[in-house]
Amino acid sequence: LVDRAVTQVLTPGTIVDDELLDAGSTNYLVAVTASDEDSSVQRYAVSALDVSTGECFVTPVSSLSMLETELDRIAPVEVLVDPAIPTDLPIFTEASWEIDHAESAGIDEAAATERLQPYLSAPDRRLPDPLEQRACAAVLIYAEYTQGDTGALSYVSRIRRYEHHDRLQLDAAALRSLELFDTYGDGSGRTLFETLDQTTCALGRRCLNRWLRRPLVDKAPITDRLDAVDALTAAPLIREQLREGLATAYDLERLAGRISRQRANARDLRSLHTTIAIVPELQSAISELPADCAAIDSLEARLDPLTDIRSLIADAIQPDPPMEITEGGVIQTEFNEELDSLRETETAGRKWVAELEETERERTGIGSLSVGHNQVHGYYIEVTNPNLDRVPENYTRRQTLKNSERFYTPELKEREDEILGAKERADSLEYTLFRSVRADLAAETDRIQALAEAIAELDALCSLATVAVEHEYVRPTFQTADDKKGIEIEGGRHPVVETTESSFVPNDTDLKAGHVAIITGPNMSGKSTYMRQVALTVLCAQIGSFVPAEAARLPIVDRIFTRVGASDDITAGQSTFMREMSELTEILHDATTNSLVLLDEVGRGTSTADGRAIAEATTAYIHDELEAMTLFATHYHELTTLAEQYERVYNLHFAATREGDAVTFLHRVARGGSSASYGIEVARMAGVPEAVVEHAYELVTDDRAESHTAQQTESS
Amino acid sequence: LVDRAVTQVLTPGTIVDDELLDAGSTNYLVAVTASDEDSSVQRYAVSALDVSTGECFVTPVSSLSMLETELDRIAPVEVLVDPAIPTDLPIFTEASWEIDHAESAGIDEAAATERLQPYLSAPDRRLPDPLEQRACAAVLIYAEYTQGDTGALSYVSRIRRYEHHDRLQLDAAALRSLELFDTYGDGSGRTLFETLDQTTCALGRRCLNRWLRRPLVDKAPITDRLDAVDALTAAPLIREQLREGLATAYDLERLAGRISRQRANARDLRSLHTTIAIVPELQSAISELPADCAAIDSLEARLDPLTDIRSLIADAIQPDPPMEITEGGVIQTEFNEELDSLRETETAGRKWVAELEETERERTGIGSLSVGHNQVHGYYIEVTNPNLDRVPENYTRRQTLKNSERFYTPELKEREDEILGAKERADSLEYTLFRSVRADLAAETDRIQALAEAIAELDALCSLATVAVEHEYVRPTFQTADDKKGIEIEGGRHPVVETTESSFVPNDTDLKAGHVAIITGPNMSGKSTYMRQVALTVLCAQIGSFVPAEAARLPIVDRIFTRVGASDDITAGQSTFMREMSELTEILHDATTNSLVLLDEVGRGTSTADGRAIAEATTAYIHDELEAMTLFATHYHELTTLAEQYERVYNLHFAATREGDAVTFLHRVARGGSSASYGIEVARMAGVPEAVVEHAYELVTDDRAESHTAQQTESS
Repeated sequence: LVDRAVTQVLTPGTIVDDELLDAGSTNYLVAVTASDEDSSVQRYAVSALDVSTGECFVTPVSSLSMLETELDRIAPVEVLVDPAIPTDLPIFTEASWEIDHAESAGIDEAAATERLQPYLSAPDRRLPDPLEQRACAAVLIYAEYTQGDTGALSYVSRIRRYEHHDRLQLDAAALRSLELFDTYGDGSGRTLFETLDQTTCALGRRCLNRWLRRPLVDKAPITDRLDAVDALTAAPLIREQLREGLATAYDLERLAGRISRQRANARDLRSLHTTIAIVPELQSAISELPADCAAIDSLEARLDPLTDIRSLIADAIQPDPPMEITEGGVIQTEFNEELDSLRETETAGRKWVAELEETERERTGIGSLSVGHNQVHGYYIEVTNPNLDRVPENYTRRQTLKNSERFYTPELKEREDEILGAKERADSLEYTLFRSVRADLAAETDRIQALAEAIAELDALCSLATVAVEHEYVRPTFQTADDKKGIEIEGGRHPVVETTESSFVPNDTDLKAGHVAIITGPNMSGKSTYMRQVALTVLCAQIGSFVPAEAARLPIVDRIFTRVGASDDITAGQSTFMREMSELTEILHDATTNSLVLLDEVGRGTSTADGRAIAEATTAYIHDELEAMTLFATHYHELTTLAEQYERVYNLHFAATREGDAVTFLHRVARGGSSASYGIEVARMAGVPEAVVEHAYELVTDDRAESHTAQQTESS
Repeated sequence: LVDRAVTQVLTPGTIVDDELLDAGSTNYLVAVTASDEDSSVQRYAVSALDVSTGECFVTPVSSLSMLETELDRIAPVEVLVDPAIPTDLPIFTEASWEIDHAESAGIDEAAATERLQPYLSAPDRRLPDPLEQRACAAVLIYAEYTQGDTGALSYVSRIRRYEHHDRLQLDAAALRSLELFDTYGDGSGRTLFETLDQTTCALGRRCLNRWLRRPLVDKAPITDRLDAVDALTAAPLIREQLREGLATAYDLERLAGRISRQRANARDLRSLHTTIAIVPELQSAISELPADCAAIDSLEARLDPLTDIRSLIADAIQPDPPMEITEGGVIQTEFNEELDSLRETETAGRKWVAELEETERERTGIGSLSVGHNQVHGYYIEVTNPNLDRVPENYTRRQTLKNSERFYTPELKEREDEILGAKERADSLEYTLFRSVRADLAAETDRIQALAEAIAELDALCSLATVAVEHEYVRPTFQTADDKKGIEIEGGRHPVVETTESSFVPNDTDLKAGHVAIITGPNMSGKSTYMRQVALTVLCAQIGSFVPAEAARLPIVDRIFTRVGASDDITAGQSTFMREMSELTEILHDATTNSLVLLDEVGRGTSTADGRAIAEATTAYIHDELEAMTLFATHYHELTTLAEQYERVYNLHFAATREGDAVTFLHRVARGGSSASYGIEVARMAGVPEAVVEHAYELVTDDRAESHTAQQTESS
């Protein structure tokens, strides 16, 4: 029999022979799938496979233009296109890659799930979007075919899923375990946000909150912010001047919102005026800062003093107007002639009435005659009963009281009508004028909001500068493309813990020495704080803040993953362990070489043998495949032997000393694995019989010797 | 040089040469210490050491007579007596042991602590009472001296502390983890007490609660209760009759309390009467039970119908008396002649007044004349204004109203005084009589309380019988002295969980096969439930209840220890681990061969190497030294190899099967260690990359092979 099976089909995207490949470049085979044309919004998914390395990833794309960008970024050599997409689009006709209408690109959802099974044990869990499943399946099926259809490609070990972001990704677990905005139970009671927040106005506070929620990943804007913080740090007097000014700023964003929604009252407009009025001060303070800072210059430029708006409000609105905008007292004098004339009429009338009492007393000779006003009857002349006989003829009776009568005269009535008419027309006119001014301002919402943004940023930057000075932070530097990647921190501190504890021991970090640090040491020795402080330092840097350290040279991280065992209740059972594994799954699929991964006690919640095996296999995988920067705190001291097996795995430990009846934690990290058996020591301190303690020590020592022997045997 | 050091001093209590020892008996050296004579209550401590085995224990003693009992029980050969105790007491002069006024018996507190250091790493923690420390130090120093003063006696590995109890000891940890009276978070929401409580009155409920809090340790009373439950179980109709009767019983204990404190009112006495009245019914129901049950007979005998008390109340107290005891209406007619006569006077007077209206109408001819009474003016005759002219002469005006006048006559006034006088004197007499009856009853408090106790026990027994029938419990049997000790349960269930879950898988227990069972299996597979159900079965048996099983042959246990890791929060830190070790310390020092020990995940909360070593050393110590019946659930699968090293250690496991995307727990215990790696399987199900899963499986397999090889090497 002659074996006529196809063993390999050569297509541009599926060449694996080294000679045929352009050394140093990756040859991606890509599949693009599209949602049904019926669906309201057309969506796409792009999956790419480098057949030479097995690298495979998938990403959702929401528009044709983004699809083009994505394909340009990937620079595929061959693209499989979903039959649902018309290929006469420019994106395809002008492309430099080969287009292939492989059948697999039209694979349906069920078949895709089926075909992905060998690659993902739970395709629906990992890739809930059928579009993405179909794209992955398309490239993999095509690649399997070209490789001779001998089944799943064993070297495709993971399928990475990502979405494009211009921000550092922080998932819910990281937000929680890093305690950025909320604290969880352990009583420090302070968040990173609270620690960094020295803003003086609501605008700044919201801006800082936004920055912390979405740290940057592009070096240029980070550097801009750091430059500005740097400049503000160096000028304490100017900074204080700015903060004093900013403290008087009203919430411009909300004012602008009310104005544009026609909800603002006269007081809101005066608040807007007050806030705009501080801009010249801010500008003049800023102008005293060193001139070489582009970020500051740009900020200064964006601080628009809105002179026209400011004048308009000053001219139109009374300085201390009432809440109501329909009852007058809102519009300035000299803003409108008609209004001024109406006000004069009213004033003249009131003056005439005020003088009436005197004139009528004289005319009638009644000394007790008085002129008054009430809501129901309006103006009246009151004469007490004994004097009624002296009332003149032109008095008309209006109201009879117990001891007096009230009258009016035709003149009084006339004046009353005049006053009331003028007042009514003035109020109405004021309201009209106010609405017109407000509408004029509403048309300027964009400019007001732009100013609000500039003020917010200035406040946030001042806040970061203030914190940097107060807590002695330093400006981080960033690695260049040529640098060996890794996190290098000298004398790093935990930004929150250092402010809540009486003393804090700074620690170095050097993830250049290896990608994966295995951290051992007793509970409470500082492992978790250390891991978190590294993550928070990276995070601070990427929002443009100085960092709590003596020196820091950092990479720009695309995502921070945490698998921190916050609670590890053994009675909580299998579901807890399942959740732990799900978090681990996400990390192992999605982390890149630019990700920072914190693992705290992975593998607890199951048998120690299984847990250790999972921990060890995870470490190996991160080392070999992901190359993500990883800090792994563990109770499995056995993991420290991995440093001997894996080049870029190294050990750190936190030591403690026993003093009398208490274990003292040094909170200092050091190279190497933790060697002392603190657990057994604590058992002894608790009074466990010496025979048991001694036996336990023997067992631990035997174990160490054994694993050492095993190591040696292996390496010999 | 001649070595003249004393190498051994022979005293009766310190002989260790086998030839000199009476084979089979223990030769205890004992020390007795006493508190200062100044102290208000003289207390003692007794410590004993068997120099031949190293067994050492200490116990507090609160009186001279108890000291005598304790010494008789220990039967020492030599006693060291604290100089503070006069030796001319009969306890010493009539003793059969040798008395020694060794200096060491007068050791002071500080020196004692110092000398105990080699035996107890934390003497103050283990033995907070200086008296006990001094007693221990005394025997040990003396023994060290007689052995040649070459330092601490290495074979004294633990110092057991106990207090004499006639009840099964349950510490706070056991009460909590076994959820006897309170539940903790895991939602079953039901306690053992609630499950066993089918009592029908407060007396019975409190009795059952007491029984559950203090289970018995003497076989005779346990058997008595079981006999009674047995008889009640077999007679459903009689049981229901009894329960119906019991349901009407008032809380006799509280009634007796109120009566003896002179706080009872008439209603309380009637309640007492009602309750006593059910006794004949109860007796007659009981008498129908099989006659061969001593416990039932004794109970029947104790159901005193208190005939005298019942008659007294029936004769003295009105059936439905008012709350107030000073305003009459309390005492029965014919109980007291004077009272009856006063009541007749009052009644006659009221009758005369009632007839007065008729007679006066006739006499005066005024048809509308009426006789009335009010609080202020007392009795009056009312005549309307139109009839005033017909008012007779002997009418005296009392009150003038709008349309009428009120009068009295001398006769009416007289009668009124008579009525009021009689009423007042009757009320006062009633109160005196009531107090006298109550005082008579108070003198019978003991008899009432004895009845209360009998009723309470009957109710508790009926409750246990009802539960036994409802939930298909069986009567446990107890091992005899000749039996090989151990817990044997067939088809055992968790008494609470079986009532709250839709299905429950029964499991066997056979601690005869070995003292120490190492239990492995995934989380939620049933390990904790299983351990708790064994403890609860033992506990049920020792309160005299049937047990939730198909068959049970049990030892009588002196104490149940639990070290169940209810919460195991890794962030909780060192203090949690310290607490875990303190609990372990107590177990390792105080457990006896008759104790039941539940260990759940001992050694978590520290490095896995230390934790495993502690777990292993603990197992070895329990096996070799304590010989306590022990169930040890663990995630350290390595512990399963101990079954090969230790004769009486054996393995149990809970298995689970994977079905599709879920792990199914069989909840069935089986011999042998858990072999499958459920943890890794869960990781796979969660979607962890296959490369990691495979690697983890390899590591686990390697480990197993390795430890197997190590075992073989060791045994060859």
